[in-house]
Amino acid sequence: MQYSKNFYQIKSNKDIFQKLLKEKDIIGYYNLPFQDINQIEEYAKTIKQKDIVVIGIGGSSLGTYAIHKFVRHNTNDKKIHYLESTDPLDIMTKIKKINLDDALFIVISKSGTTVETISIFKYLHSLVQIDNSNCVIITENGTKLDKYAKEYNIKQFEIPKNVGGRFSVFSVVGLLPLAIVGVDIKNLLNGCKMIYNSFFNQEKYYDLLMEKGRFLVENKNRFNINIIFSYSALLEGFNKWYIQLWGESLGKININGTKQGLTPIGLLGPVDQHSFLQLIMEGTRDKTVSFIKVDDFEHDISIPNISLKYLEELDYLNNIKFNELINHQADATIEAVQNLKTIPYDIITIDKIDEYNIAKLMFSYELLTSIVGAFVQINTYDQPGVEAGKIILKEKLSKQSF
Amino acid sequence: MQYSKNFYQIKSNKDIFQKLLKEKDIIGYYNLPFQDINQIEEYAKTIKQKDIVVIGIGGSSLGTYAIHKFVRHNTNDKKIHYLESTDPLDIMTKIKKINLDDALFIVISKSGTTVETISIFKYLHSLVQIDNSNCVIITENGTKLDKYAKEYNIKQFEIPKNVGGRFSVFSVVGLLPLAIVGVDIKNLLNGCKMIYNSFFNQEKYYDLLMEKGRFLVENKNRFNINIIFSYSALLEGFNKWYIQLWGESLGKININGTKQGLTPIGLLGPVDQHSFLQLIMEGTRDKTVSFIKVDDFEHDISIPNISLKYLEELDYLNNIKFNELINHQADATIEAVQNLKTIPYDIITIDKIDEYNIAKLMFSYELLTSIVGAFVQINTYDQPGVEAGKIILKEKLSKQSF
Repeated sequence: MQYSKNFYQIKSNKDIFQKLLKEKDIIGYYNLPFQDINQIEEYAKTIKQKDIVVIGIGGSSLGTYAIHKFVRHNTNDKKIHYLESTDPLDIMTKIKKINLDDALFIVISKSGTTVETISIFKYLHSLVQIDNSNCVIITENGTKLDKYAKEYNIKQFEIPKNVGGRFSVFSVVGLLPLAIVGVDIKNLLNGCKMIYNSFFNQEKYYDLLMEKGRFLVENKNRFNINIIFSYSALLEGFNKWYIQLWGESLGKININGTKQGLTPIGLLGPVDQHSFLQLIMEGTRDKTVSFIKVDDFEHDISIPNISLKYLEELDYLNNIKFNELINHQADATIEAVQNLKTIPYDIITIDKIDEYNIAKLMFSYELLTSIVGAFVQINTYDQPGVEAGKIILKEKLSKQSF
Repeated sequence: MQYSKNFYQIKSNKDIFQKLLKEKDIIGYYNLPFQDINQIEEYAKTIKQKDIVVIGIGGSSLGTYAIHKFVRHNTNDKKIHYLESTDPLDIMTKIKKINLDDALFIVISKSGTTVETISIFKYLHSLVQIDNSNCVIITENGTKLDKYAKEYNIKQFEIPKNVGGRFSVFSVVGLLPLAIVGVDIKNLLNGCKMIYNSFFNQEKYYDLLMEKGRFLVENKNRFNINIIFSYSALLEGFNKWYIQLWGESLGKININGTKQGLTPIGLLGPVDQHSFLQLIMEGTRDKTVSFIKVDDFEHDISIPNISLKYLEELDYLNNIKFNELINHQADATIEAVQNLKTIPYDIITIDKIDEYNIAKLMFSYELLTSIVGAFVQINTYDQPGVEAGKIILKEKLSKQSF
């Protein structure tokens, strides 16, 4: 007698870990924490321009924005401008704010031929002289953009072939613009290393991330929406970065031919208590919520000890620090959610607002994404679904120009 | 023999229309298009300050932001600042950008005792003298904030009792700050009236909105996520406003005790082609998509007719206007989605970027929300689910201050 099986089943944690151990020699993002950043730091020091213009879309700008937004209050006085949309009014409004004669243009495109990026780069050529004095190019080795850079002797940095756009924030893609505006990129990588070591040594973050990934996968049909509810306006960029990472990595057809996809949503507290929270509380039970709190905002201000006539009932707010208020708001929302006993949630607390902590958060989300992708048996690192639109666009435009 | 029934069933379009006809004499937002705006316009003309500070959260600021973001390029040189989050770093960063001695503070709170709003208002008192020369208050009649305004002779405008926060953009809540920065509020109301008349005369927008609402309700369990994919960066505020309107109105327990709730998502094209689009294309089929395009951006710029060495393959972009490019990108994405034949979508085209058109869009979304709410038999206009957290917060803070 023989018995063989081909059941689709959720793999064991051990299987997943083995898969990730193999993957980390192939997929580039895992090893970015250990790269040599001397060249990036040295180059960053030479930059004199005040306006840093990042021309790049999706993975070429979201991670930089996420980190800069979070630690901006501790950076230098250079400003980053992001040109990515092809909306003409948006481009014009943003360019008005740039001193083109004192700007460094950082052109970022993994493929070297991203339509939005090259279109905007060309448009800038019609406004200002662009050459090796005010331009740096970040692309894969051997792309046409790389050849362009070499032809005109423009400083060029390489995106490793095995690092995908949405996993590239800790490569030169994010590190270069961030180093230029004074972000401590060494400390960023230290945060990544901490998570990396804890996970691959099967310590605390191994348990946390495997448990969370497994829960999300086992309940993916019941809870198909994963919310991040961040209690700090400084995490707005992180939320956007998470949406790309989660949506584009996990929205895939798997090896069994079934469509997978957990839907990411980013909320900001307390603002979204006055918006989306009602839907969480009384709506369909199709959502998980990860609350993110910041323990110490450092720069603090308090509600003064004054009484406004007729508004005395709110005097219980007096002398409270805003740092405490926002965390009490988070705790109150969490308690209200907890009391329902029907909504899966977890809480991530960030100790303080610095490079080390945001890197820990982001690198752990990258690992979580890899874990979930491995569980549902998809290719977490490609994005075949967006090719169809690109081909149609090229057809439309090519036809038009003749 | 007797036969009676109490089946839960989706009501007919006629039933829903009858319900809305009755509702419009009770729920205030329906009649805002017909209000007298003389007083608002006259007052707006008297404002000399350059920095307009809106202190209000959720429905007290989202609609204003949505409209201002859309038509800003045609407004005067006054700037609107939004203070809403209790994040201390966010408050400090925003206040740094305000000239407190040349600022008008518009305090907006329907209940008059919104924690975030009063906390920030109090904090501002510790920085600058606030009195009837630089402050205006918008609240319901009879609230404690209203009494405070009267006590200190501060200019006060009334939010009608039957206009809820998320439906208040076309009341004084939105109209006053918008009029001050030079938005043509008469034209806003004209846009609303156009939709109102078409709908209640059972013309074009009756058919469109009833069909769409009915489809969303009939398929709500299959497609529990409703995406708006806006192809203009100027619609970023509209997307956020939509998320509040949809989530907070429709996330409810209905008359049969079942949890309802369609989940709103706002995307921006082309940026989110490099993020969320993969999930739409290959992910689980649980989403509907409403594409929004802007036909004419008016202020236009083109990709210059230059060839970059090695990048000649992209010369098909030369001479193309960005206005055309972004619309071709929208069309290409729509075509790619259409080719899948498994994703329900519709397309809304905005003729031009002005007050009339954004009001049409927003008022039609308010009506659509009312239609869907009526179909699923909920109270579209309350938000009982957010009270639990508020009570817990008050307990936490009151305990602390003694």
